[in-house]
Amino acid sequence: MNQDYIQPNDWSIIEEGFDVDRVKSSESLFSIGNGAMGQRANFEENYSGHTFQGSYIAGIYYPDKTKVGWWKNGYPKYFAKVLNAPNWIGIDIEINGENFDLNSCTEVSNFRRELNMKEGWYNRSFTAVLKNKTEIAVNVRRFLSIELDEVGYINYEITPLNKDAKIVYKPYVDAGVTNEDTNWEEKFWEPLDVKKSGNEGFVTAQTFKTHFKVTTFMHNSILTNGELTHISPSTIDALSDKIQFSYDTIVAKGEKSSIQKIGGYTVSLNHENTVTAAEKIIQVALHKGYDQLLEEHIAAWAKIWEMSDITITGDVKAQQGIRFNIFQLNQTYLGKDSRLNIGPKGFTGEKYGGSTYWDTEAYCIPFYMATKDQQVARNLLTYRFNQLDKAIENAKDNLGFKNGAALYPMVTMNGEECHNEWEITHEEIHRNGAIAFAIFNYYRFTGDYSYIPEKGLEVLIGIARFWHQRASFSKEKDQYVILGVTGPNEYENNINNNFYTNYIAKWCIDYAYEQIQKVSLEYPLDHKRIIEKVALSETELHEWKSVSQNMYFPKSAELGIYLQQDGFLDKDLVPVKDLDRSQRPINQKWSWDRVLRSPYIKQADVLQCFYFFENHFSKEELERNFDFYESFTVHESSLSPCVHSIQAAKLDKMDMAYTFYLRTSRLDLDDYNKEVEEGCHITSMAGTWMSIVEGFGGMRVKNDSLHFSPKIPKEWEGYSFKINFRNQILKIAVTHNETQFSLEGDKEITVFVNEKPIEVQPNQMVTA
Amino acid sequence: MNQDYIQPNDWSIIEEGFDVDRVKSSESLFSIGNGAMGQRANFEENYSGHTFQGSYIAGIYYPDKTKVGWWKNGYPKYFAKVLNAPNWIGIDIEINGENFDLNSCTEVSNFRRELNMKEGWYNRSFTAVLKNKTEIAVNVRRFLSIELDEVGYINYEITPLNKDAKIVYKPYVDAGVTNEDTNWEEKFWEPLDVKKSGNEGFVTAQTFKTHFKVTTFMHNSILTNGELTHISPSTIDALSDKIQFSYDTIVAKGEKSSIQKIGGYTVSLNHENTVTAAEKIIQVALHKGYDQLLEEHIAAWAKIWEMSDITITGDVKAQQGIRFNIFQLNQTYLGKDSRLNIGPKGFTGEKYGGSTYWDTEAYCIPFYMATKDQQVARNLLTYRFNQLDKAIENAKDNLGFKNGAALYPMVTMNGEECHNEWEITHEEIHRNGAIAFAIFNYYRFTGDYSYIPEKGLEVLIGIARFWHQRASFSKEKDQYVILGVTGPNEYENNINNNFYTNYIAKWCIDYAYEQIQKVSLEYPLDHKRIIEKVALSETELHEWKSVSQNMYFPKSAELGIYLQQDGFLDKDLVPVKDLDRSQRPINQKWSWDRVLRSPYIKQADVLQCFYFFENHFSKEELERNFDFYESFTVHESSLSPCVHSIQAAKLDKMDMAYTFYLRTSRLDLDDYNKEVEEGCHITSMAGTWMSIVEGFGGMRVKNDSLHFSPKIPKEWEGYSFKINFRNQILKIAVTHNETQFSLEGDKEITVFVNEKPIEVQPNQMVTA
Repeated sequence: MNQDYIQPNDWSIIEEGFDVDRVKSSESLFSIGNGAMGQRANFEENYSGHTFQGSYIAGIYYPDKTKVGWWKNGYPKYFAKVLNAPNWIGIDIEINGENFDLNSCTEVSNFRRELNMKEGWYNRSFTAVLKNKTEIAVNVRRFLSIELDEVGYINYEITPLNKDAKIVYKPYVDAGVTNEDTNWEEKFWEPLDVKKSGNEGFVTAQTFKTHFKVTTFMHNSILTNGELTHISPSTIDALSDKIQFSYDTIVAKGEKSSIQKIGGYTVSLNHENTVTAAEKIIQVALHKGYDQLLEEHIAAWAKIWEMSDITITGDVKAQQGIRFNIFQLNQTYLGKDSRLNIGPKGFTGEKYGGSTYWDTEAYCIPFYMATKDQQVARNLLTYRFNQLDKAIENAKDNLGFKNGAALYPMVTMNGEECHNEWEITHEEIHRNGAIAFAIFNYYRFTGDYSYIPEKGLEVLIGIARFWHQRASFSKEKDQYVILGVTGPNEYENNINNNFYTNYIAKWCIDYAYEQIQKVSLEYPLDHKRIIEKVALSETELHEWKSVSQNMYFPKSAELGIYLQQDGFLDKDLVPVKDLDRSQRPINQKWSWDRVLRSPYIKQADVLQCFYFFENHFSKEELERNFDFYESFTVHESSLSPCVHSIQAAKLDKMDMAYTFYLRTSRLDLDDYNKEVEEGCHITSMAGTWMSIVEGFGGMRVKNDSLHFSPKIPKEWEGYSFKINFRNQILKIAVTHNETQFSLEGDKEITVFVNEKPIEVQPNQMVTA
Repeated sequence: MNQDYIQPNDWSIIEEGFDVDRVKSSESLFSIGNGAMGQRANFEENYSGHTFQGSYIAGIYYPDKTKVGWWKNGYPKYFAKVLNAPNWIGIDIEINGENFDLNSCTEVSNFRRELNMKEGWYNRSFTAVLKNKTEIAVNVRRFLSIELDEVGYINYEITPLNKDAKIVYKPYVDAGVTNEDTNWEEKFWEPLDVKKSGNEGFVTAQTFKTHFKVTTFMHNSILTNGELTHISPSTIDALSDKIQFSYDTIVAKGEKSSIQKIGGYTVSLNHENTVTAAEKIIQVALHKGYDQLLEEHIAAWAKIWEMSDITITGDVKAQQGIRFNIFQLNQTYLGKDSRLNIGPKGFTGEKYGGSTYWDTEAYCIPFYMATKDQQVARNLLTYRFNQLDKAIENAKDNLGFKNGAALYPMVTMNGEECHNEWEITHEEIHRNGAIAFAIFNYYRFTGDYSYIPEKGLEVLIGIARFWHQRASFSKEKDQYVILGVTGPNEYENNINNNFYTNYIAKWCIDYAYEQIQKVSLEYPLDHKRIIEKVALSETELHEWKSVSQNMYFPKSAELGIYLQQDGFLDKDLVPVKDLDRSQRPINQKWSWDRVLRSPYIKQADVLQCFYFFENHFSKEELERNFDFYESFTVHESSLSPCVHSIQAAKLDKMDMAYTFYLRTSRLDLDDYNKEVEEGCHITSMAGTWMSIVEGFGGMRVKNDSLHFSPKIPKEWEGYSFKINFRNQILKIAVTHNETQFSLEGDKEITVFVNEKPIEVQPNQMVTA
């Protein structure tokens, strides 16, 4: 059953009413993050009901010992887990001698959560009656500063409503945390040191194996009616991995008592001495104070929204959906640090592990290119460049390739492969294609060619070498084939000649070849440096071309479609619409062999190829392939509906496009896949953005210009978005009658609307 | 490196010289068993070097919690482990105050192990100098009685050679044992009770979850120069799961001291009160005494050999190989108990788990049919009949089949599937075919049709229903296809239209259909009973036939061969002979994806079909397919060389046949696959028997008669074997010049030699 309790609202995610069965889902949906850290919307005070506790720090991971039933050669030794980080938000509270716990109150009313996406804060308020009959009103606000990204702030206010109350606040930091998904029930954190000083507490711990050192800190202030008190804490708990203070205060009925807790992490990735760094950052935060920090935080979010907001009028659920997606993407990754990437669950859960999938290149980069400075996308590309050596090592040591062939990992934290299903890790090799495509896409969008001679070309060569070696010659077909792969549709394993994989393999070789020629002409010094470094010969280049020129592509002349793989038409081709609803989702209802031999498609596969290489195919071809494959697609991947939405829009199937749009944008809010408790689907949220910009807006970059073919779902009155195109910011507003363009920048640009050129002058509005 | 330390000998396995690096291998090779229990050749006394401790009881298993990296629907909850049983052989020994341990002696000489296969005992002798300079001569003999199959006997003799010695014997039984292959480091045995009485000790324990109750017992006698002493034991250890006695004795230099230990198991599968049963069986054994028990044991083995021996003259290694194989098969399974089956490692190790694979039907049944009473093979068939309900449940609940379709498990202890790799468990469905084929084979060989109306027909119907539902219709091919399988060649996963699978699927349907007609005519009451029970309609039968009549088989007209699967010829077809030796075994050197897309074949696949259905194909077809597939076969399964040996013999490729014969018969003795430390490959040993009888002897059953086409490797002078054919025992002796037949029985039979009929009279020799 899809849940449907989130209140429709333009700018906020709002839950009203307390329901213990929704706690874990809401913990995911109300998560906050600032690119450097984040956490699920766990209650600050102790909660004895069902909860999934999770705090996360970007770049800090744990290589958990691999768990498999039967070991296979080439499996990595570890699976990098998104690490549940020490808890700094915790505040145990005692009221008139009773531990306050929402799960044991006799009454909870006016319960309301709000995630204010415009301003970037999370608020929880309610009235509760404890077992001891004390009635309290509570309001808690929490935010993780964008400006000071090592710091979060909690303002926890309690007003006793029916009697005076002795309130004891017991804030703590605790490194004694575990992951829910440990393979071997092991602890991941080794406590090193606990320190306290006045109102400040510090717990330093390091990860086992990876030895990331983290100081988790807190500073607490107690206020009455907004005035700072000077209550001194006693220390109740100074274990090796936890420190907890206790503040006693007497609050008269009707008075507002509050604790303001500053907390966060300083990590050895950024600091030599993490304790000293923590002490300093507390001083900076205290100096600014809660109000100023929040103000600056709101301003930072305003700046983010200024660039990345999409407005939709006339459809509040659609509006809320897209903003939730954009908000989460920005909470997860702000592009400041090229060591980081975009984890599939961001800071909302620990499932899947690893921080980097092909999702980054295939789905996220377009969003970050268009809504941030181009350096952000460049950082994402550089992340892969920095891991090229490990991709070469992976191909060589684990998989038997040679001569500098690079296979990027399916899942990684540091460039090493860390996923261990052979059918994914060893066979889902198309990921290499998206990484090359992203280089092409970056240049196409930004016009910044310098990345290729500087870094990109080496990556392209390693990838081309991989495809060259991975293809094999079929005497039977007299062509090159690629056997034993898993395509983007993970409901097929060990198939031969996946159209998408073969196509992108050929493209990668051709593109690398072209760039070598271009760099040779335009950047001869870089060319020399690189060719010498990678020892690339003319003979090898010649062999590459013979593979790319003779690549085999499965197709059906009769149906006029490309085949997802050899033998696809042998399947029992019952369309999804004729599949009994009780059998879905098939990945939860069917055994794996049945999923595999069925015609059902988890996510765009042939259609992913049509998405990447749109201009290689005619619209008629697209339509035939879309109609065929859409009928078998079950969209059980979060990455699926967006691509179908874009293509449906292109084919003027607007009702379908709109349905897919809602599905992608509200996947988590409406919990389509019945798993939001485990966290949100962050990377596919970039696909939602693409559904509007590339789908409805029809945006493309061709020949260094922006092209549009705007469409609008009948359910909407209008929508608008902005594109940062080569340092000029273009705003596009679409209604049923017209499209308006306006430009923040200093020189005019020409855009194309349905292939017709339109001049847009700075700070003028043009209607098309 | 293949080891090569076993002395060639017609009747014994002999190791000379003590080498700590060989201990684990020898523990496997010198294992003993009696069908009901067995154990590795672990030393009785404490040994601090590398050892793999293992004792096993037939039918007693543990359902270990499944371990997988990523759970998939339909996976069984447990993997049934061959359980390391309580140790009853242990005797700690102290000599002049020093714990005797071969690993810490200053000198060990004249070390010799002998496994006397003719008489069924295992002997170990050596001279050792302890650190305290006491020199002793030791001789230990152990056997597990065939007659009293709950009892084993150890006679452990020590002669101090250079000084008098105080010898303390500390025999024990210990249920505090663990499996090396636990998934979660859990204990499998729960101790219940420890009891002692005079020289007898009892430890009763039960398995967790399955609650098999086992009393492990011992009785000890101390002798000096063969005369019973009356030393009373003290109890040194009476833990909850172990009991240990201590006997002190002073032995003069040159005198022979010995401990005779009776031990074994009584189990709740056979006894209400296992302790009482243990007490009784000790009395029976004591009453007979060591000498008589050993004598009866030798006589029992003589009877086994009388029927099952194969002699080979002129090639002692070949002779030793086949006897080792026959000996191990008989140690593992004697056919007395239809609850038992033939575990892949017998009583020699714990690897693989489960007791029953398709190996039983495809490889073992022919051996047991021809060398035992036909009831033994009937018991093996009945084992599957008794598990039909669970096979139906497995197909329905785990895999989504309906209407009584049965899929037998890939690995089982009790009828439930307990293996958990989707590519094996869910896709290696051809096992269902071998189970039907065994019914056909049993009737073909024994002429006992009664099994089919009584039990077999229901099994055949369940299996036919499975294939009917599992096949799907390809509009593209206008034929039925079977998609997404793993064939006998496990170096392919999720392939389409595996020739062997499609062929046996069609055969199963046709055979079930025929048997329904036959039973209908000849056993109308059984027919009515069964058809009503399984609710089989004419419509369904009609549908079966349309599947079997329109089954698709992949082939190459150009090469004149059947294709192992769709697309096989797209592979990079480099024959094994051109594969660098350093790359083998490929399953240890290559990542799984590379194995899968290679053309290399682990074991006979298309050729398995030619083996089962020989008379469906011409010899020319066989030769073309053999030549093609043999060139790609790496024989990395123990089940592979035997089938190739039989077919090579048929094709007069005698050198090849001989090479494969040696490989199959001495697989463990010469440790071809570098893994004998983990135990012996029991089930493939039946394939060795087939290599001689069906390969060189060319034995077939056609139209109720035995046919032969004898051939002989040039390395041999002659060979002979016996066949129990329909309660008459025919002996066949082959030399380069002639074949002799003689018959133990009461009526003449006609055999065919190279299609020529020969009359053999009882107790007369006929030469052909």
